[in-house]
Formats: sequence, structure tokens, C-alpha cells
Amino acid sequence: MSWQLTEEYLTDLARGAAVLGTGGGGDPYVGRLLVQQAIRESGPITVLDPSEVDDDALVIPTAQMGAPTVVHEKIPSGEEPVTALRALESHLGAKATATMPIECGGINSMIPLVVAARTGLPVVDADGMGRAFPELQMETFGVYGVTGSPMAVAGERGETAVIDAGADNVRMEWLARGVTIRLGGVAHIAEYSMSGADVKRTAVPRTLTLAHTVGKAIREARERNADPVAHLGEVLKGTLYGHLRVLFRGKVSDVERRTEAGFARGRAAAVSFDGEHELELEFQNENLVALVDGEVRCVVPDLVCVLDAEQAEPITTESLRYGQRITVIGISTPDLMRTPEALAVFGPAAFGLPHDFRPVEELVAP
Amino acid sequence: MSWQLTEEYLTDLARGAAVLGTGGGGDPYVGRLLVQQAIRESGPITVLDPSEVDDDALVIPTAQMGAPTVVHEKIPSGEEPVTALRALESHLGAKATATMPIECGGINSMIPLVVAARTGLPVVDADGMGRAFPELQMETFGVYGVTGSPMAVAGERGETAVIDAGADNVRMEWLARGVTIRLGGVAHIAEYSMSGADVKRTAVPRTLTLAHTVGKAIREARERNADPVAHLGEVLKGTLYGHLRVLFRGKVSDVERRTEAGFARGRAAAVSFDGEHELELEFQNENLVALVDGEVRCVVPDLVCVLDAEQAEPITTESLRYGQRITVIGISTPDLMRTPEALAVFGPAAFGLPHDFRPVEELVAP
Repeated sequence: MSWQLTEEYLTDLARGAAVLGTGGGGDPYVGRLLVQQAIRESGPITVLDPSEVDDDALVIPTAQMGAPTVVHEKIPSGEEPVTALRALESHLGAKATATMPIECGGINSMIPLVVAARTGLPVVDADGMGRAFPELQMETFGVYGVTGSPMAVAGERGETAVIDAGADNVRMEWLARGVTIRLGGVAHIAEYSMSGADVKRTAVPRTLTLAHTVGKAIREARERNADPVAHLGEVLKGTLYGHLRVLFRGKVSDVERRTEAGFARGRAAAVSFDGEHELELEFQNENLVALVDGEVRCVVPDLVCVLDAEQAEPITTESLRYGQRITVIGISTPDLMRTPEALAVFGPAAFGLPHDFRPVEELVAP
Repeated sequence: MSWQLTEEYLTDLARGAAVLGTGGGGDPYVGRLLVQQAIRESGPITVLDPSEVDDDALVIPTAQMGAPTVVHEKIPSGEEPVTALRALESHLGAKATATMPIECGGINSMIPLVVAARTGLPVVDADGMGRAFPELQMETFGVYGVTGSPMAVAGERGETAVIDAGADNVRMEWLARGVTIRLGGVAHIAEYSMSGADVKRTAVPRTLTLAHTVGKAIREARERNADPVAHLGEVLKGTLYGHLRVLFRGKVSDVERRTEAGFARGRAAAVSFDGEHELELEFQNENLVALVDGEVRCVVPDLVCVLDAEQAEPITTESLRYGQRITVIGISTPDLMRTPEALAVFGPAAFGLPHDFRPVEELVAP
């Protein structure tokens, strides 16, 4: 059933989106303020369950694109993703009937809400990553046959580029990344336009609801002084993301971060509170893999999430600092994201990692 | 009057275009072969005098974009500029009635001929640079109010990007250059779509004819063992490019060339045959300035052309080699290209050169 998203949902939603963003997906705080302002100006947003979308609807997902290190410094006005949507509509010669997130996490759970509020379009409760990933071809949409092209990129001064790389979503990413770098490292996009039937077939369903559920679970546990991580694990059992594992608890001992070819890349290390164990994290915008004492404990596409040890507040890769006390958790991804064709696009090898994918629930005991 | 361009014109035209390319504009030899093939397949090309173009015609110029150092290595199929034209037509929702060069020089005198032969469109005998320049905003079209956007960029695999930077042609260049770099350093483009009235108002007229005249003058002088440079000077007196000056004769003593941010940049030095004088050339794809013994002898937008000392065959910046025996000439540009608004866009300061513009006919005695 469709529901109305009001301002009251936003704090929980932003927190949950930051968890599912696995360290990336842009700044959820900025995103929340943009949505808040848009709702205050235009009223609540209609969220459509994917099952409700007409098969012949035209759904155009919208998002922000860029390195989180840059996004941090450049606050969008909120008009940029609408400009991208309009440029793509104009290119297609057709009007969108709904927008949708391309990823579930950080600011990109929020950008489609900004677009929805500003345009009056509904937003579909689904996305193409089931988490955040750094590159545009890393979409279940693409894995199951929807092409990203044509896509529109919009800059802060109203510049647009409509890119068409045919069926080659990797080439599309490469070209769009080049434009984004020239736009100053951050841009807004509209891509993977698709029918309602394609949404039902290729999208990870109900991830806006999931983000809200995650954020709410953490808040409610805090409010009654329960363990937020344990409570979150219980709540997730009823979802497509059924397994939560605690991978590590300790203090950040090292962070190495660089902005390179339009991405924030790096690694972080932490030492357990008893000084006996060492964690190593690798990231490209998002966390890719967590190793404990050299052994893989959780690897993409499963979610590696860094939370602060006391409040379980999610910590993005650009906020990681020496000395932070953290809990690192792994969350299992839906089956849709673990098929051989999905792993070919966003499994460990797609990131140049030498590890085989193994489900987090097999790697770590409950 | 319109005329038919056949295969017989091409050798002189390519040579003349290489002279007017002032060292850049891409490889005229490759361009000539592409046009030759297209004419053999599709018949001769109709060349329209600008005065004949209907005021409400839609003229879409086409070109190649990229660093000559890369262009040298990647031979186009000839279909790429047609892909760019079609992408822009589709974006505009209108069909071109003619194409036109954006610059007069090197391969970019040839690419619109390839497009004309392949599409059956006529080509307008005019361009927007009156020579070759390295950047897309450096157009009389833009100087006199035609915007370059929207523009289409096409890659060798059929990828397209339609860029719209509004009235900001510098921003358009910046974004298109980024796409071109990601396409491997060379791309084909369609831009500055305009009406026939705009062509008459903003284009440098009859530069295809000029290129043919220049190439023919050099050939005819060679055939009768006359001095090609002296004969070229005589022939140019009857055109908008009325003043030719010999700036230097000598041997190349040093060439420094690098591909940087999508351009071939560098400098070359030469020593006079008597060892008494030194020439310094600076280039960014094209030759920008010639200094003799530290004094400016010819500077953009006037043409600095390097010819081989014996046959007056033009030498492009990427073909400059230690030990070459050269004659360096300066050619005056039309008044349209020397106005204050034109100099602001492609005068010395636009290239970061510390020199004021002074006409070559004032700097050097006949």
C-alpha cells in the first residue's frame, strides 16, 4: 500500500540510510535537510509499494553522483536532480510517472524524495543496489537487463549532459564520471529509466521502508537503554536482510583516505579493546571488505557497517577518525544480489578484491 | 555560386588546410583519405557559398575534437561525426539543411566534407575560426552571439553525449574536453547549430575555397620551379587574408611537446641558416606565437605557419623534428577576427600569453 512520507519519518530514515550506505552514499544529514525543506514547501511525499506501480509506468530514478569527500563540501540546492530528470524526460520525449532511488544509503535515499516533493511525483519504495555502491553499473537494474543509458547529468550551474552508451553500463559510468569530475566532483543524475514491470522484476523492494525500520530500531533501543545492535539484529530477521553479525569491536588505529579518479578510496584499521585482534577495512566510497586478523569476515555485496560503539550511530568513510570507538557489523543481502550474474557486477572481483564471496552468515557465527 | 567538390580538389585542399591549420587541426592526410573514400562511395559534394544559404536554414557544423598527438594514432571510420550530427538533430527535434566546418585547418576542413558526402547534405563554404584554434569557445560564431550548446559528442563505439552549458561556451568546452579525454583523447562533435542568417553574420566566409587556393598556389609554384612562398603571398593579396610575411628561415634546434589535459602543448626553437638569429614558437595544438631573438613577430589570432624550406609543405606541431629546415610565415587574419570582442576570446591573453596583439603586417616589413 502507498503511504505518505512526512517530516517525522526523516530522522529515523536518514539514520537507517546511513547504516545501509555502508560508509558511503553521501551525507545523509545534508540529504535530510533538503527533504525537510522540500516537504515544508510542498507537503508530504507519496511512497508507492513496487507492487502498486503500473506495469507501463515510466519510472526514472534520480541520485547524486560523486566522491563523498567532495559532496561533503558542496551542498546542493535541491534543484539539480530535478534538472537531470527534466533533461532525461526531454531526451526521451516522455514524462516520468514516478521517481525511485538507485541506491539505498546516505544522501541517495534522500535525493529522490527531494525530487518527489519538488515535482509532485510519487517515489517507488525500492532501489537498484539494496545498499550503496560506488559505480553506476553496480545496479540490480543492469544485472537483470535494464540499461542505464540514456542518462542525464546536471551540474550546479544548470549545465546538463545526456549520455548514451547503449547497453554498456560500464562505459556509461566511465563517461558520466568524467563529466562529474569536470563539474567539480559532484553532480546529480537521472538514469535507468524503466517500466513498472521492470521495477518489479529488477529492483530490490521496500528499501526506503527498510531504511526507516533500521533507523527506528536503533532509536527505540537507545530510548529504553537496550543494546541497539542486538535489537537491530532482531528487527532485521523479519526482512530480506535476515542476518546481522557483529564483526568487531575496538578503536580506530589508522585511516588512509585519498580522492582519486573521482572516488574516495582508502583503508582503515582498528584494534580490539583487549588489544588482541586487528580489523582491516577497505573502501571505495563504501566499505568493501572487513578482515579480522587477516581473515575475511564480510565482503561485498554483503554490508559492512561501521557504528559508534555506544550509540550505534553510523560512521561514514569520510568521518572515520583515529581513536573512534566502533562496532563493525555485517548484514546479509537479499538473494537477488547474490546470484552469479549479480556477483559478476558487484561481487569482490568487480572491485579487484582477491576474495571469493561467502555469505556473512556462513563466515561469522551469530 | 554553389560548386561541386570532387576528388580532384582534395590534394590541394588538404595542403591548404594544413597551412591554415597553423600546425594543428588534426592530420589533413587522414582527413583527405576519408573524404576521398566518401566521395567514391557517394559522389561529389555540393559546396554552398554563404550568401546562398537561406536565412532560416538549419546549419549544424561538425568537427573532430582532441589532441593531435592522439588523433595521429586513432583513425576514425568516418561514421562518428555523422553520429554526432544525428544525436544533435534528435536533441533539437529538427534536421540539418547543411553542415559547415567549425575551423579551417587540417582534418577539420575535411570532417564536414565526410559528413556531407555520407549524408547528402551540402557544406557551407565558411567556418568559425578562420584558421584552427584549440578550444571550442574560440569561434567567431560565439564572439558574435551564437551559443555552442547544445552540442553532441560521439565516440568510436557509437557512444554519444549531448552537452548543454547554456550560453557559457567556455564551460561547454570544459565539459566536452572531459568527455573527449574519457573517449580516449579524440571524439567527433556537432555544435553551434545556427540559422543561415547567423552564418552570414558570424562566420568567416569562403575558407574552404581559401584552403584550396592556398594549396593550389603552392603546387603551381612548385610545378614551375618558382618560390612557393612568394607566389602564395601574391595569391593571398586578393583575399581577406591579404598580408603574408616571412618571419624566419632556419633549422629546428629543439622541440618540447607534451599531451596535457587533452591538448598537445609545447614549444620549438630554430636557428637561422647563418646561425645569427633564434626563433621560438609556442603551441597549444596550434602555433600561438613566433618570437625572433625574443621579439614577437606574429601572434594569435594571426597565423603562424611552419613550412618546409624547400617545398613549402606545411609541418604540423606533432611533426616538428630536430634538424628540419623550415620557413616560418605569418598571415594576417580578416578584420572580423581582430575586433576587441574577438581578441577577448582568441587573442594572446586568452592563451595566457603576455603579449599584446599587433597585426603581423605592422610587426614585420614585407
